[in-house]
Amino acid sequence: MVSTFPMQPIGYVSSPYKNLREIPRGLGTKHDAEGVLEIKQELELGLTDIEGFSHLFVIWAFDRSEGFELLGTPPSDNRPHGVFATRSPRRPNPIGLTVVELLRREGPRLYVRGVDMLDGTPIFDIKPYLSNIESQELRRGWLAEVEAQTEP
Amino acid sequence: MVSTFPMQPIGYVSSPYKNLREIPRGLGTKHDAEGVLEIKQELELGLTDIEGFSHLFVIWAFDRSEGFELLGTPPSDNRPHGVFATRSPRRPNPIGLTVVELLRREGPRLYVRGVDMLDGTPIFDIKPYLSNIESQELRRGWLAEVEAQTEP
Repeated sequence: MVSTFPMQPIGYVSSPYKNLREIPRGLGTKHDAEGVLEIKQELELGLTDIEGFSHLFVIWAFDRSEGFELLGTPPSDNRPHGVFATRSPRRPNPIGLTVVELLRREGPRLYVRGVDMLDGTPIFDIKPYLSNIESQELRRGWLAEVEAQTEP
Repeated sequence: MVSTFPMQPIGYVSSPYKNLREIPRGLGTKHDAEGVLEIKQELELGLTDIEGFSHLFVIWAFDRSEGFELLGTPPSDNRPHGVFATRSPRRPNPIGLTVVELLRREGPRLYVRGVDMLDGTPIFDIKPYLSNIESQELRRGWLAEVEAQTEP
């Protein structure tokens, strides 16, 4: 059984955020920052027909995060939660997942809205966003609790 | 600049699918197979409070896929598309992404609906599914075209 899988960047994020403090965090945060997914030239063919999709999943590396903690307190709450029930950067595998809106493509560059990554973040994969979960079926655990407490 | 990121499984999928032929593919496929995400005992604390979420993102390894192709023809179409505009297993980084419904948790085991992975698939990460894209904002490119052509 293979125990380690080596991942290599397919490209890098060009983002307005140069350090962590600049990235909006916490409850009700809306990520509408624009950025560019700069894919390696030799992989450009893999972007064929991506223009047809309005939204993309971006899978990327928390490359400036060190170590992990199984329990952590997110910025939106004062109670600790398990790392797999949060979007904490301090994860056993430092993998990030962001849904972005695709604005346009220029060759190997995807101009997108909704980046929450640091400038220079390595990208592992891009996939089309194909479907939603029905809103009435969605439960959002501790996050919904915090939201309910902070509503006026 | 780091060029390779080693990822290690946080656990494995227990799935009814023992080989690729058994996994439903193509247009309109509904994945309602049940399975179990078996997380390593030493990471169980990281699942704290995950029960509150109805749906989870599972990031996993296409561990039985070899190599990649930048252009490929998916089962639902007869035209080739770029790998980043499809869910092809033959990707530069063999990373899979699946949204599952969490049915219940028993210690380090998450019982879920919606698995489309092979039995024994390594899991890299689990994240809570927090929000949808508004349906009226969603465009689904070549997939929507194929669906339109095949509707009665």
